[in-house]
Amino acid sequence: MRKIILLGSTGSIGTQTLDVVRNNPDELTVVGLAANTNSKMVEEQIREFHPAYACMFDENAARDLKERVKDLDVKVYSGMDGLLELVSVPEADTVLTAVVGMIGIRPTIRAIEAGKDIALANKETLVCAGHIIMPLAKEKGVAILPVDSEHSAIFQSLNGEPGDKVEKILLTASGGPFRGKKIADLENMTAADALKHPNWDMGPKVTIDSSSLVNKGLEVMEARWLFDVPLDNIQVVVHPQSIVHSAVQFVDGAVIAQLGVPDMKLPIQYALFYPDRRPMNEKRLDLFELGSLTFEKPDTDTFRGLKLAFDAARIGGSMPTVFNAANEMAVKSFIKGDIRYLQIYDMIEGAMEHHKVIANPTVEEILAAEAQTYEYLDR
Amino acid sequence: MRKIILLGSTGSIGTQTLDVVRNNPDELTVVGLAANTNSKMVEEQIREFHPAYACMFDENAARDLKERVKDLDVKVYSGMDGLLELVSVPEADTVLTAVVGMIGIRPTIRAIEAGKDIALANKETLVCAGHIIMPLAKEKGVAILPVDSEHSAIFQSLNGEPGDKVEKILLTASGGPFRGKKIADLENMTAADALKHPNWDMGPKVTIDSSSLVNKGLEVMEARWLFDVPLDNIQVVVHPQSIVHSAVQFVDGAVIAQLGVPDMKLPIQYALFYPDRRPMNEKRLDLFELGSLTFEKPDTDTFRGLKLAFDAARIGGSMPTVFNAANEMAVKSFIKGDIRYLQIYDMIEGAMEHHKVIANPTVEEILAAEAQTYEYLDR
Repeated sequence: MRKIILLGSTGSIGTQTLDVVRNNPDELTVVGLAANTNSKMVEEQIREFHPAYACMFDENAARDLKERVKDLDVKVYSGMDGLLELVSVPEADTVLTAVVGMIGIRPTIRAIEAGKDIALANKETLVCAGHIIMPLAKEKGVAILPVDSEHSAIFQSLNGEPGDKVEKILLTASGGPFRGKKIADLENMTAADALKHPNWDMGPKVTIDSSSLVNKGLEVMEARWLFDVPLDNIQVVVHPQSIVHSAVQFVDGAVIAQLGVPDMKLPIQYALFYPDRRPMNEKRLDLFELGSLTFEKPDTDTFRGLKLAFDAARIGGSMPTVFNAANEMAVKSFIKGDIRYLQIYDMIEGAMEHHKVIANPTVEEILAAEAQTYEYLDR
Repeated sequence: MRKIILLGSTGSIGTQTLDVVRNNPDELTVVGLAANTNSKMVEEQIREFHPAYACMFDENAARDLKERVKDLDVKVYSGMDGLLELVSVPEADTVLTAVVGMIGIRPTIRAIEAGKDIALANKETLVCAGHIIMPLAKEKGVAILPVDSEHSAIFQSLNGEPGDKVEKILLTASGGPFRGKKIADLENMTAADALKHPNWDMGPKVTIDSSSLVNKGLEVMEARWLFDVPLDNIQVVVHPQSIVHSAVQFVDGAVIAQLGVPDMKLPIQYALFYPDRRPMNEKRLDLFELGSLTFEKPDTDTFRGLKLAFDAARIGGSMPTVFNAANEMAVKSFIKGDIRYLQIYDMIEGAMEHHKVIANPTVEEILAAEAQTYEYLDR
């Protein structure tokens, strides 16, 4: 039985993870739950899944939750210190990190130090701290199990094949709502335009990142660390139908791909049961309904976010953190209507140009690079 | 180092197997070669690959070969007895069976009895004698490694996953040159029409079988034995581009597929090095060049061969042998111009209707069923 701590239990991945737990009550159990502010939903989750621990990142929410569950035998933590305590409790063997943002880095490191396997749904962890996380996981003998749809597809396609048998990773991208558009088309795009994502139902930040290909750039950085492949061996493939979730080309030329309907529960379940596959009663892929599958090169002249991501990854050190932080800030500004769509790229590029790279940054240096990026762009 | 006996060394699979050996001289060695009549080509192969044994099925060809290689230290066998001796020699660990027809059954059984792994490129072996071969291989602890493109794709997609994790096998078919045609179109099709196969360069018999979907029916029967799945869990998928070589749908709904350019050297090499993947410098799949991938249901009303194959497989026992033998005879007659295209199906159906099934037939009973089918259709 896997004993799970779930960081980010109220978000989309968190609630779908609890669906998977609900469907596998004999094999999965929830030891701890953590969220930011939604104490009401966490209360409901506690009453259903009976974890021994919970944590609210927000102090007020933590106080509220304590009050709500005072009739129950559950210890409620708060803040970053609470998260770090939570991921260290001896009863758990796996931490699923579905929190959004840099906040995921420290709890992930602490969890690895405590010997927990990591089911990873927090992008920033590997983007910013892959050079810390991956060697540490190796040293501690813990698994880093991808939960993201594309990385899970690669993981499934590899199915244990060693990295030196991989010639190329084919990371698919839907292309987002602006696929096929040119710079002139993008100039006046609004947040509402970007939020019409064709295949996946995601949050606004990820949806904007999908439209700009910044999301795919972050996934390239993650893939590089997860699968230990050179950047040049990662090929982004625009595949508008989102049926091939990604693929691996091996040294003999064989391509192994994972296909399916868009459904996050599959990669979540795969990560939690790996290397076993468990039955799941969700919608099946119907090849006969598909129409046709197509593949295109990404247009990196128009969607500069992907090119900038490769640049940041190649430079390495603290640069991916700057790329990510600048994008976060830019997307926020875009959603608020403060900047225009293409200025997202300008802000990322400006922040990267201004940054003095630190090679092999510590967690403190990563967090400082983030803060400096915000500060620089806010001036 | 794998030490190989190659049955059918002068055919298409045989010569491509020798290409693979040529490219991996430190890992693969040829212990024995066998062919039917082409002693001149076998002589050349002996001079290049230095096997200790050879066999010509045809007695005259064997005499000719002995004369040709009398300066060399190679033992030359002949006939079926020679084949049976050849596959038993202690120096070999693997027998690649690329002979065409029922002739492959006995040497395969003898090779398994002698503890050799089987790289299987002979269709009839499993179609007619799967119920003998598979339990025997299990008992002797030898591997049956598929060499056929589709079965290799399934084998690669499984990559060791146990059979009880498989929900469905998706066996792809190009659809052949007559895809989309209706019965009225097929009535006057000639052998020349059928021999224009769009994707794969194969022999005339297989190409006709591909046009009639009989070939796919035989592959369904093979897949059933190779992967130990119920017939109803094998879905034939018409995929005209022949890029997805086949796929597996697992119990969680994930579909894993193997894709590539059409090239038999990949499955040959995969079988010979399994579970390892070795580098191979052949053409790579270029997703961006593909155009689009499409999938259709097979039209079994028009291409009745596939439906008859499922019927034969469901009846089992000696019926698949009758299906196969009747088709062989029908295709010969069609190539000679003695019957019309759709009469291929009539001949198969007639022979199946006439046959009294033997459950669990012995090899002798299989060969007798074949002979009786020829006799019945020749009357």
